[in-house]
Order: sequence, then C-alpha cells, then structure tokens
Amino acid sequence: MSAQTARQTAASISAASPLDGLSLLLGDDMKKVNALILQKMQSDVPMIPQVARYLIAAGGKRIRPLLTLASARLSGHDGPRPYGLAAAVEFIHSATLLHDDVVDESRERRGQDSANIVFGNQASVLVGDFLFARAFQLMVEDGAIEVLRILSDAAATIAQGEVLQLQTARNPDTSMDEYKKIIGAKTAALFAAACEIGPVVAGKNSATQEALRDYGYNLGMAFQIADDVLDYAADQKTLGKTVGDDFREGKMTAPVILALQDADAEERAFWQRTMEKQDQAKGDLDRALAILGRHGALERGLALAHDYATKACAALNGAPRGALHDMLLALPAFAVKRDH
Amino acid sequence: MSAQTARQTAASISAASPLDGLSLLLGDDMKKVNALILQKMQSDVPMIPQVARYLIAAGGKRIRPLLTLASARLSGHDGPRPYGLAAAVEFIHSATLLHDDVVDESRERRGQDSANIVFGNQASVLVGDFLFARAFQLMVEDGAIEVLRILSDAAATIAQGEVLQLQTARNPDTSMDEYKKIIGAKTAALFAAACEIGPVVAGKNSATQEALRDYGYNLGMAFQIADDVLDYAADQKTLGKTVGDDFREGKMTAPVILALQDADAEERAFWQRTMEKQDQAKGDLDRALAILGRHGALERGLALAHDYATKACAALNGAPRGALHDMLLALPAFAVKRDH
Repeated sequence: MSAQTARQTAASISAASPLDGLSLLLGDDMKKVNALILQKMQSDVPMIPQVARYLIAAGGKRIRPLLTLASARLSGHDGPRPYGLAAAVEFIHSATLLHDDVVDESRERRGQDSANIVFGNQASVLVGDFLFARAFQLMVEDGAIEVLRILSDAAATIAQGEVLQLQTARNPDTSMDEYKKIIGAKTAALFAAACEIGPVVAGKNSATQEALRDYGYNLGMAFQIADDVLDYAADQKTLGKTVGDDFREGKMTAPVILALQDADAEERAFWQRTMEKQDQAKGDLDRALAILGRHGALERGLALAHDYATKACAALNGAPRGALHDMLLALPAFAVKRDH
Repeated sequence: MSAQTARQTAASISAASPLDGLSLLLGDDMKKVNALILQKMQSDVPMIPQVARYLIAAGGKRIRPLLTLASARLSGHDGPRPYGLAAAVEFIHSATLLHDDVVDESRERRGQDSANIVFGNQASVLVGDFLFARAFQLMVEDGAIEVLRILSDAAATIAQGEVLQLQTARNPDTSMDEYKKIIGAKTAALFAAACEIGPVVAGKNSATQEALRDYGYNLGMAFQIADDVLDYAADQKTLGKTVGDDFREGKMTAPVILALQDADAEERAFWQRTMEKQDQAKGDLDRALAILGRHGALERGLALAHDYATKACAALNGAPRGALHDMLLALPAFAVKRDH
C-alpha cells in the first residue's frame, strides 16, 4: 500500500459518510474526472459552458461518476479509462436534470435557482441535448461498443421512465408497481449502468458485470425512494430542494401511494382534490403531512428503501474485500438514512 | 440489371422530382427503413409511439435516411446494414424537430399542429430524448464505432448550432458568417453525416467518405438557405409551415441579413423594431416583404443557395455513374428551386 493510498484509506475511514469516504478514497481519480468534465463542457458557443457550469459546478454529489470509478477499481482496472466514462455518466445525468427541470417547471436545484429559471427553457433543452451528445462522444473516444450499449440502453430507459412518470402524474390510482417501474427507469437504470461499465472496462466476465449492475440498480432504487420520502420530510431545509415539490406537482411517489393503500374516503377525496385536480390551498401540505404521518407512510417508505439497500449489499458478496468494498457496502444504508 | 431495378430506373427518370426519383429508385430499401422506423419507435410507454408516430407518420421527405441509403449504395454496399443507420439518422432528425418546436414555440409542422401543441412541451422534450437515445441504440446494434463517431459528432454540432441560433435571435447585427455557421451546424452537419456513413458501411476509403460528406454538407446548406428564403415567399402556402415564422420569431436568416447589408436608416429602424424589440403590428410582415423585394434579398438568397448546390454537385465528381448518381446530382438544384 503506497503512502498515498494509506493516507486515503485512513481519511476514508474517518470520513463523515461513505460518500465522503468514497470521494476521499478516489480523490485523485475524481480530480481527473472533474477536470475532464470542465474541459468537455467547453464549446465556442459561450452559452453552453455557462449553463453547464451553472448546473454542474453548483455541486451535486457526483455519486454516479464515483460509482463508475469505484466499480472499475473494484474490478481490478487501474488505468485512466474510467475517467472519460465517468464524465459521460455525469453528462447524461446533467442532461436529464436540465430537461427534468423544464418538464417539472422546477424553480430550484441544488440550493439555487434552477437553470430553466436563470437561462430559460430553451437554453436548458438545448444545452441538455449538447451534454447528451457530448456523453456519446466521450464513449466513442473510449471505443468500447459494450459501454455504448449499456449507456444508450440506459438513456432510452431513462426517457421512457420520465414519460411514464408524466403519464401517471396526478393519477391517485398509480400502483406501487408502476412507481417502482418509473423510478427503476428514471433513476436506478443510470446507477446500474454507471456500476456495470466498471467491470467492462476491467475486462471482467459477465457475472461480475451483472453483480455490479445489480448493486447499482438496488442502490438507485434505495436512493430514489429515500429521496421521495425526504421530499415530504419538512424539517430538511438543507436539501437544496423545496419541501413538498412532489406534492405541488402531483407526482405520485412512495409516501402518497403507501398512504393511499389504506386511506379512508375523506383522505382519498383529499388526494384526489390536491393531486389529481391540482386544487391546492394554503395548509394542504401540512394536512398531507399529517395524513402521511397517520399511515406511517414515511417510515414505511424508508423501510422499502432499506429493503433495496439490503439487496444492493448482497450483490457485493463476491467482490474483493478492502476499503473500497467497505465504502460501497456502507453506501446503500447511508442513502436511506441521509438527512442531507 | 434486374427487371425490378429496370422498372425502378424507368420510374425514377419519369419522376416529378429527383427526391421522388430517389424514393422510387430506393423504394424497396425505403420500405425496410420505414418499417424499422415504426418498429423502433415502439415502447411499452404508450405516449412514446403516439408522439413519435404523430410526427414521423405526418410525412416529411425522409431526405436524410434516403441520403444514407443512396450513399451506401453508391459506394457499392448492397446489404441491409444501412437500414438501421438510416432509421437512426431519421430519429436524430425527429428528436431535433420535437425539441426545436418547443424552443421556437412553434404551432405548426408538416401541415398540422406541431407535437408541442398537441401533446405539450413536456412530452415533446422527453419523447425527443427517447428518439435520440434510440438512435444510438440502433448504431450500437450496427456496431461500427466510426458511425457512432460521425453521428455523435453531428449531434453535438447540431445542439451547438441550435444554441448559437438562440443567442443570435433578434440580433440585427448577426453577420452572414454567423448565419452560415448556425445553419452549417443545425442542418448541414446531419446531411453531411447521413451521407458520410454510406461509404463507411461500404468499407470505402477516407477520400470517398470525405467526398460524400462534402456533398451532404453543401446540399444541406443549399437546402436550409432555400428553406429560409421560402419562409418569406408568401405565396407558398402548401409548405406545411406558416409563412413569416422566422420574422415573427426574430430569427436572423439569409434574406434579412442580405437586406440589412445595404439598408437605409429607416429600414434598419424597421428591423430593429420588429426583430430586435419584437414590436410587430399588423402589416409589418407585408412591409418586411416589400423591403426584401427592394433589395432583391430573396433572389440573392437563392443565388447563395445555388452556389452551395454547385459545390455539392462538384463533390460527386469521382462517384460511379448511373441512375443513383444522376438523382444525387439533380437533388441540390431541386433543393434550391423547390416550391413545395
């Protein structure tokens, strides 16, 4: 173990969270990825880096590129190939964020006005398109057709998930299965792909590929369900997102679906008025929170997220032990518990 | 020459236009491409084929997939490989149309209400994303990394052209060079790419690749400039687009840029008011047309388009002679003269 690695390992162990630990453990790699992200968002059309930088530099946890790096390193690859692919994954994610915020008419993202508010819908749509194309250019530079397959499949799946979400919005009859299908597509698919390309780059067999894909998928599910629960956790003002967004948009997520499973007539009428008809008045969010509380919907949502977290950990059974393995193993539970 | 080929050649010679001729000459191939387009726009999310079919089945000239087929056949490839790539090219084009109409707030496309009007901006953005991803899946199925390079480069260039267009909108100081850069990116780049992948599939050398790319680029320039002139040709009500769209949107295109080159103070004030400040009243479009007429701006625009058409034809110098060559040679002049 080199001095640097030892230092990183020590740092990661004392890190505040497994995500911070992963960032520390892969710190040198992530510096390269971040530099590449900044470099590849350049264009001689000034508005493009302006919008892209606004979104990407605003932070975000970089969890997807971290997963690509981690899965490549865990699979035994120690070269620079994952850098471009990790950047590609972050670009696909950034493109979907830009388009999502247009579609959802969001006003806030990562604790600041969202790009659609600052630069307009037009710029958000087109810069999203650019980042998406740039992601594929990065994959082409790498040259592995299998990586292109994984990420083009993921991109098609994400778009389908977003459309499905659009179709089920404001529909109180949305089932838990439909919800899982939506978040499986719009969130877990990219987590799965980000993890799957690691072993591909490392030249590992399809069993390793499938195990890491499985890890990413279940982590993504846990992550999104926890996110959807947090959207109703009114004391979490540090999230960089407005509490109650999903409620205001009529987005059917785990807490409301769970609360609707054994709702009485009055509650059902409430959800129909507020979500389906989008007829919302002052105090309705508080009432929604009270109903969710009555049904233990947030706790039950987190329990569901926890189930996925457990599955994610199980998928790592065959992976080599070490600091990286420890962090990846701790990440799913952290994704569920996070209050950040 | 088979009976079928002979029949097609005879048909193409008597066809109303080189585009019809090309469609007839490549009729059997285009049937396969159209079937593939319909098949690959399917999804178990019903809104996706619904929106895609609405746009794609509404017609359109399918000029880009025709170019991919033609360039592959002209380069000596006679297998089915170009079908998927021609469909990919059409999907990229369709995705940009869906996003364009959102960005431009268009109301009409191909003679009917545009998709953003019928299905909303959200569906247009997301189904565009799906078609874009699907295009890359089709390229991955083909497996040629060089094709992926060509089309991912084109996609990034298109997005940059669109953003540049957004930035120059309503700016009467837009130069002819900036205009050429915009249309070179947003239109000619995909024409060039559509043509370039033909020789790649046929395994031809880079000189053939460059020649056909050159043909496509110049054809695309001619096509777009003619299109921008037609936008002001008020008697062309059969275009399937509203006359004066570019004027109303403040889009700086060849006719206005040419008319501004030797505009007097009053005319300049008119363009500033109507384009820059978007302060338009009844009768302003007629006045714009009168000013364009005074400067011969439409004729001069078409002359510029004709220059590109000539360059396109010159690029075909080294290509094998025959019916396909004849049609491709006739296409650029037709693109300029078209009143359809």
